Amino acid sequence: MIIVTKTLEYKSEKYLEFKDITEDVEKIVEETKVEEGQVLVYSPHTTMSVVVNEKEKGICNDFARVLDKLIPQKEYYEHNDLSKRTENLVCEPGASDCLNGHSHCQHMLMTTSETVPIIEGKMMLGMWQRIFAVELDCARKRRVVVQIIGK
Amino acid sequence: MIIVTKTLEYKSEKYLEFKDITEDVEKIVEETKVEEGQVLVYSPHTTMSVVVNEKEKGICNDFARVLDKLIPQKEYYEHNDLSKRTENLVCEPGASDCLNGHSHCQHMLMTTSETVPIIEGKMMLGMWQRIFAVELDCARKRRVVVQIIGK
Amino acid sequence: MIIVTKTLEYKSEKYLEFKDITEDVEKIVEETKVEEGQVLVYSPHTTMSVVVNEKEKGICNDFARVLDKLIPQKEYYEHNDLSKRTENLVCEPGASDCLNGHSHCQHMLMTTSETVPIIEGKMMLGMWQRIFAVELDCARKRRVVVQIIGK
Repeated sequence: MIIVTKTLEYKSEKYLEFKDITEDVEKIVEETKVEEGQVLVYSPHTTMSVVVNEKEKGICNDFARVLDKLIPQKEYYEHNDLSKRTENLVCEPGASDCLNGHSHCQHMLMTTSETVPIIEGKMMLGMWQRIFAVELDCARKRRVVVQIIGK
Repeated sequence: MIIVTKTLEYKSEKYLEFKDITEDVEKIVEETKVEEGQVLVYSPHTTMSVVVNEKEKGICNDFARVLDKLIPQKEYYEHNDLSKRTENLVCEPGASDCLNGHSHCQHMLMTTSETVPIIEGKMMLGMWQRIFAVELDCARKRRVVVQIIGK
Repeated sequence: MIIVTKTLEYKSEKYLEFKDITEDVEKIVEETKVEEGQVLVYSPHTTMSVVVNEKEKGICNDFARVLDKLIPQKEYYEHNDLSKRTENLVCEPGASDCLNGHSHCQHMLMTTSETVPIIEGKMMLGMWQRIFAVELDCARKRRVVVQIIGK
């Protein structure tokens, strides 16, 4: 049994961008030469999600519309109310001045990571499955942790 | 440490069906004779989710109603608009002619897989926990991947 | 490769409480002396979720408001309708008399567990990431299963 952990780096382009990272994850899986096992694809961010779904432009647009309708960006969030807030008032460079209450709430209904089984050296992705990093905040530098366990 | 990967096959019956697959997963766990470890229950589909919750008819009806209210089947989705769409226009036999924009959006708020710890040869499911495959599309052939890692 | 499984015990305080359990999980990770691997943080309950997000009071209040707006506690649920319901009519001590249809529905849009990679003996939590047990039911006794796999 071996464990291999790598970090991918990206620059996201905009709010609700779906970045297809399948090939980058696949490359790491192949390099490990693991025949059977699994790969954890993990977002170390609180406003970026990892999801597995189909790559089709309409779906990405549909989900962006649905998510922003359920949890709108343009609404009152205590997290954005600098007249009340006292905690974590340090923004990362390029961040949305911390005014991302919607991003955090959206993230909590989504997932921080996905795990995909590996067999015969390949991820067992279904016919239409691709792995996406979904930006819930504004454009910024992002990382994705890829960890393979197997033999 | 061993890894065992199996695939279960089902025929789903309808949109928003909750199929209880706990006993099928349990049987695979027992056959591996793993004493301590974990089992990944993975949907290789983009419109079927795996969830862990209570088996009670009311809950399934409640969740079906809630989910279709938040992300209605009968609403406009770009994914369903064949006057615009150009990608992935190959439907699987028995599929809903690709008109499943709601299913994809619902799936992105749910999960592709669940992982359950194993101890003393048994899944550590709580008193009320059961494992379900939740159909978000129409009735069709489905697979669930079950992967055990442990010793 | 080793596997270690521990159970944490808590008393939750109220509906939609965010309990920060990061330090308790960290302590178990450190005790195992695993250098590289991952930790599964699993809720054995059908109305308590595990999420990874930022610890800031506003975010917790925002998410509580958003979630109860999307899936309100004060609404009709078949699960709560004792004139219809016939299954699982055994409540745990301190439970909400089984009248928790909203809790189950909320849970199905959230997650039962999160998995965090470990490297150099530490969880790879991003700058703002904390691990929370989120109570979706009323105040009660709760457990969280922590399982580490690694070397």
